[in-house]
Amino acid sequence: MSQDAARKPAIILVEPQLAENIGMVARAMANFGLSELRLVAPRNGWPKKGAHSAASGATHILEAAKLYPDVAAAVADLHFVFATTARERGQLKRVFGPDDGMREAGARIADDQAVGVLFGRERTGLENDEVSLADAIITFPVDPRFSSVNLAQAVLLISYEWHKSAGAGALPFTGERRSPPATRDKVIAFFEYVEAELEAVNYYPKDKQPIMARNMRDIFHRLQMTEQDVRTLWGAMRALAEGRRLRKP
Amino acid sequence: MSQDAARKPAIILVEPQLAENIGMVARAMANFGLSELRLVAPRNGWPKKGAHSAASGATHILEAAKLYPDVAAAVADLHFVFATTARERGQLKRVFGPDDGMREAGARIADDQAVGVLFGRERTGLENDEVSLADAIITFPVDPRFSSVNLAQAVLLISYEWHKSAGAGALPFTGERRSPPATRDKVIAFFEYVEAELEAVNYYPKDKQPIMARNMRDIFHRLQMTEQDVRTLWGAMRALAEGRRLRKP
Repeated sequence: MSQDAARKPAIILVEPQLAENIGMVARAMANFGLSELRLVAPRNGWPKKGAHSAASGATHILEAAKLYPDVAAAVADLHFVFATTARERGQLKRVFGPDDGMREAGARIADDQAVGVLFGRERTGLENDEVSLADAIITFPVDPRFSSVNLAQAVLLISYEWHKSAGAGALPFTGERRSPPATRDKVIAFFEYVEAELEAVNYYPKDKQPIMARNMRDIFHRLQMTEQDVRTLWGAMRALAEGRRLRKP
Repeated sequence: MSQDAARKPAIILVEPQLAENIGMVARAMANFGLSELRLVAPRNGWPKKGAHSAASGATHILEAAKLYPDVAAAVADLHFVFATTARERGQLKRVFGPDDGMREAGARIADDQAVGVLFGRERTGLENDEVSLADAIITFPVDPRFSSVNLAQAVLLISYEWHKSAGAGALPFTGERRSPPATRDKVIAFFEYVEAELEAVNYYPKDKQPIMARNMRDIFHRLQMTEQDVRTLWGAMRALAEGRRLRKP
């Protein structure tokens, strides 16, 4: 096991049937930084056509995937194993959601334990004897009226929650404004300009100027204007006012 | 819009190409209780073979899906629209992850706003003009080395986070122990039985009984035994001890 893989949960697929599903699992893992894929007795053999195109570039994961004859062999070197299951098995194990399950995985990995997550067959899931090899259960907080989660979707939720809980959940971009917030003096100068222009064209009904000006200031304050916003709006207002003056004569 | 649908975000697919993807989107929505699917100009027409089998039973969502000629029409009746995008667009919008985005959606829906989430084409995503129709951005906390998320996977993460944030994220089962925790007197009686049997076979080296007994009690305490656990273990210990006595003569 590589040093990198040892620091993240292994994804273990038990008798997966469709090569496309295995490929989509690899893609989901790659999206959220997982890399160790273990395959227990794939139903149609391995390697298998169709997996690579579904992996959409995550071929490094498929090529490094390890094959095992049964679940016991696939989990032999691990210290803590989760079994994913949609239904209760009557086994006295702790039950986690994907989020607190991956927090538990992170704590154990920080303690130098090797952790794996078992995913069952597309149609029938894990057998009870396979679940009994696990230390704990992960199940998904699905709508009980429609609880059948696709294999790659289940792996995606685990990978996503792992990535988030590992503190690696930073967004690829954050929408930082490229222009700094406008200073209050610029904002107020803008208000005063606009109000003077409106005054000049008798926009305000008698005695209404203070309340109407305040209302308009509130609207612009809600924008939390950047310097660029103030320049843009001021320019537009000036164009309207000066265009009017140009048209007038 | 039905009363139920009005209380949840609408999922809006812009020019989706593959019927299978539309079907898998419906399945992902159904897993987490979403129901309103809007399709903007599907590339290969609609309805389309292949969607139903990929939906794996979520056909009610496909059958209720509404068709629109463009994004502006698809969002016309909404109050707040998120655009999902993997890359920065240089547009001054708030950027959310799936989790805080869906919390924002929940707050707006609680305020009687209709909310939708835009998902772009499989290969090319949303065009900038389409993003500009949105109030805010959602992006995924992916590994930047592998940021291409499958369409149905993206919808799944939004649906999952919606379901969690809407307080509907209860697990379908919680592994409540069916047997109540053992009372301390039963646990101690069990310890005393085991220690007496071990004493009887000279298990403890001289002077070591107190520390060895304490170590074993610690092990069993870590189990947080139920009444059933105590009965089971006690039965097994007794069988070992009595079997030995039976074999002895």
